[in-house]
Amino acid sequence: MTVTPVAKSGPAYFPNEPKGPSVKTSTIPGPKGKATIEEISQVHDVGAVKFPVDYEKSVGNYLVDVDGNVLLDVYSQIATIPVGYNNPTLLEAAKSDEAAIAMMNRPALGNYPPKNWAGMAQEGAIDFAPKGQKYVYYQMSGSDANEVAYKLAMLYRFNNLPRANGAYTEEENTSCMNNSSPGSPEIAVLSFRHSFHGRLFGSLSTTRSKPVHKLGMPAFQWPQADFPALRYPLEKHTTENQDEENRCIEEVEHILSTHHCPIAACIIEPIQSEGGDNHASNEFFHKLQATLKKHNVLFIVDEVQTGMGSTGAMWAHEHWNLPTPPDMVTFSKKFQAAGVYYHDKKLRPHAYQHFNTWMGDPLRAIHAKYIAKEIRNKNLLDNVKTVGDFLYMSLEKLAEKHSGKINNIRGKGKGTFIAWDCESSAARDAFVGRMKMNGINIGGCGVAAIRLRPMLVFQQHHAEILLNKIDELI
Amino acid sequence: MTVTPVAKSGPAYFPNEPKGPSVKTSTIPGPKGKATIEEISQVHDVGAVKFPVDYEKSVGNYLVDVDGNVLLDVYSQIATIPVGYNNPTLLEAAKSDEAAIAMMNRPALGNYPPKNWAGMAQEGAIDFAPKGQKYVYYQMSGSDANEVAYKLAMLYRFNNLPRANGAYTEEENTSCMNNSSPGSPEIAVLSFRHSFHGRLFGSLSTTRSKPVHKLGMPAFQWPQADFPALRYPLEKHTTENQDEENRCIEEVEHILSTHHCPIAACIIEPIQSEGGDNHASNEFFHKLQATLKKHNVLFIVDEVQTGMGSTGAMWAHEHWNLPTPPDMVTFSKKFQAAGVYYHDKKLRPHAYQHFNTWMGDPLRAIHAKYIAKEIRNKNLLDNVKTVGDFLYMSLEKLAEKHSGKINNIRGKGKGTFIAWDCESSAARDAFVGRMKMNGINIGGCGVAAIRLRPMLVFQQHHAEILLNKIDELI
Repeated sequence: MTVTPVAKSGPAYFPNEPKGPSVKTSTIPGPKGKATIEEISQVHDVGAVKFPVDYEKSVGNYLVDVDGNVLLDVYSQIATIPVGYNNPTLLEAAKSDEAAIAMMNRPALGNYPPKNWAGMAQEGAIDFAPKGQKYVYYQMSGSDANEVAYKLAMLYRFNNLPRANGAYTEEENTSCMNNSSPGSPEIAVLSFRHSFHGRLFGSLSTTRSKPVHKLGMPAFQWPQADFPALRYPLEKHTTENQDEENRCIEEVEHILSTHHCPIAACIIEPIQSEGGDNHASNEFFHKLQATLKKHNVLFIVDEVQTGMGSTGAMWAHEHWNLPTPPDMVTFSKKFQAAGVYYHDKKLRPHAYQHFNTWMGDPLRAIHAKYIAKEIRNKNLLDNVKTVGDFLYMSLEKLAEKHSGKINNIRGKGKGTFIAWDCESSAARDAFVGRMKMNGINIGGCGVAAIRLRPMLVFQQHHAEILLNKIDELI
Repeated sequence: MTVTPVAKSGPAYFPNEPKGPSVKTSTIPGPKGKATIEEISQVHDVGAVKFPVDYEKSVGNYLVDVDGNVLLDVYSQIATIPVGYNNPTLLEAAKSDEAAIAMMNRPALGNYPPKNWAGMAQEGAIDFAPKGQKYVYYQMSGSDANEVAYKLAMLYRFNNLPRANGAYTEEENTSCMNNSSPGSPEIAVLSFRHSFHGRLFGSLSTTRSKPVHKLGMPAFQWPQADFPALRYPLEKHTTENQDEENRCIEEVEHILSTHHCPIAACIIEPIQSEGGDNHASNEFFHKLQATLKKHNVLFIVDEVQTGMGSTGAMWAHEHWNLPTPPDMVTFSKKFQAAGVYYHDKKLRPHAYQHFNTWMGDPLRAIHAKYIAKEIRNKNLLDNVKTVGDFLYMSLEKLAEKHSGKINNIRGKGKGTFIAWDCESSAARDAFVGRMKMNGINIGGCGVAAIRLRPMLVFQQHHAEILLNKIDELI
């Protein structure tokens, strides 16, 4: 296939990148990879290992495995590598005094913050926060960032319950030590079908993507609403998609009015990722916010996978242009630090109500600062938009050419955050395997979807390699 | 007070340490500290801040705050700093290629482990694992390490339920997506009164130390047993302490026989730390293990605070000499990496049943490797034992001298993991404040306890400074 460039590819961000993928072994993992897995198995679980990687040799958009196979990586360690393997700016930052001191004198941040913590949090989070988000709590992963958001919402509600003299009652103080109400009240978080918000016990109660995540675990009796199941192409299904979104909003309204216990917050991904790259319209999110406000339910946007630029905006929910900011926005993955943005100081609970030993990791705040600088200095958001538009348009052409093989392409105008459905789950899995054996590391999600999650340094010449392989192998 | 040395103090580990504490300002935080807190408050919660620290200037056992006050630190960032501030060996490690590559190419470990992951996990965890523990899962913090241990125990039970053809039933697969039984079964973890195991939703359901941790949060209906309330001095209360421990074991037995749902695991701290430095005898833990085995309930030892040497053994539960290893041991804090040791491969669930994006952090595994090397190379366990014995003996003398002020000293033969009770909660808080203003950063726990949590590089000359200040200020 010859694809029509929509923009000239700029100079390569990584001049020392391989010219393209190359696969030497008849399987991936090859013989060395298999031996390495066996070795790892002696100390660590290997049930989900795809192949071991030589990170020293990996560069830019290319992964090198232990057998010397070179793969173009459009999955990026489950969407977490922001600006390329062995990015020289980041490697230099890693060896700085600043990083070494932060790493080896890790503080209990909540008690003994470093003298420059205001500046570190400013440059490592607030400077590139979503519009309207003024404050941050750091955590360790997306999953516990979401749990902290739930806790803040619950505490906000609990602390504002009317009490005689403002103090917690004796009954509250004693019952909570027994895990009982009213001190440990029944209180819920609303999430959506097919959502993924993590796998700790609280976040898992809001995750609704796959049984493998949930089987065998106890869960809170929290409600779920349908996420809109849009039909594609969008322009041919305008009315029915609007009806579908209205139906989902009505379900939210119904749940908020009838659930058996109070609902402190509602959490949603701007694009449901693990659940299949499910999108909804800007209007849907506007209506959702309005509905939540009406019921005094806090609005948490989970930007763990969508944040830090891959939709062409720093934060995916910025595409919505909401009239007021969401109450909280959670982040992790490409951010490398994890945590919760919040827009109003009133969400800070009393001292020690939200607290833990480390309260995050200044080292990863430094890391995030350098990632954000790299995004700004190299105009990577522009790169993502340009390459994303090119990718989307080219995929539409490929879909026409290979009828029935590339279905429901989604992510128009959302940078490189693009997905499509294969004919079936089996066809998707086979396609992922063929791509790997042809030098492309690509990921699936949902039932039969392929999700593109390249890094922000994925350029047009990489996109051309990817598109040609899809054309060849689909 | 003149204390009698029990051993000569060896050469100082940090020749460039201050000779002693010095306090310049009339409050801590002083004027610069207060201004710094105000600045931090613009972006981050400061409700629990004690004082901001100049980590560049801190060295060995000494913290330097932003006002230039120099404090001998026997609290060590809530018991997390293992081998001194700005330890030169660790700083060098932080600037290595190995660390920079691990930091800036952070992998999705479960899918794409680094080629040398077996060696990293071996040197960064298994080489200094508790006896009998052969495998490791890394996590991010003590709290989520405990949750993973709960999940492994629950999955072990769930996966071994008898099923017609070995596959999960349709009902299990569908009900779990609705947070309902049988796919999301009611299943419990047993913990002990006054325990602390973390503050995520699952770990919080096992934490029973203080209302401030639990108020406002929903909790699972999980059981708790009494932890022995021993009387001191131990040698004068042998029979009643035995009776007390037997009573607690009987309560465990009763709970395991009567709880309304299955109990997958029991978690216990070797020394309940946050809850007040509560100890129990080796025999108690032997009996506990036997009782759990009888009921097929997995035994999890939470070594988050006690692990990595501060009791004079690498792992506190090694003091017990159990006939067989505990099923799982969790770690964090001084380890800098967090996670779960397990002794039997049968605890590995099916692929993706325990999985998350990062599955830990190779950088912190490297960090742990260097900490363990430093402990070995400098014989720090011997140092902890010697200094700990000296501290304990000297505190006993001080207790005699200051009748009623230093009560229930505990931690004999447990290195520097020593605590005592003040007359009251208020007296404890006042003492902590006075110590700080006299250059000693010291921590409390439980109702009225002082807990000593110095680093492993805390030597006799530091202990003498500490003891003299206690003598002066108690």
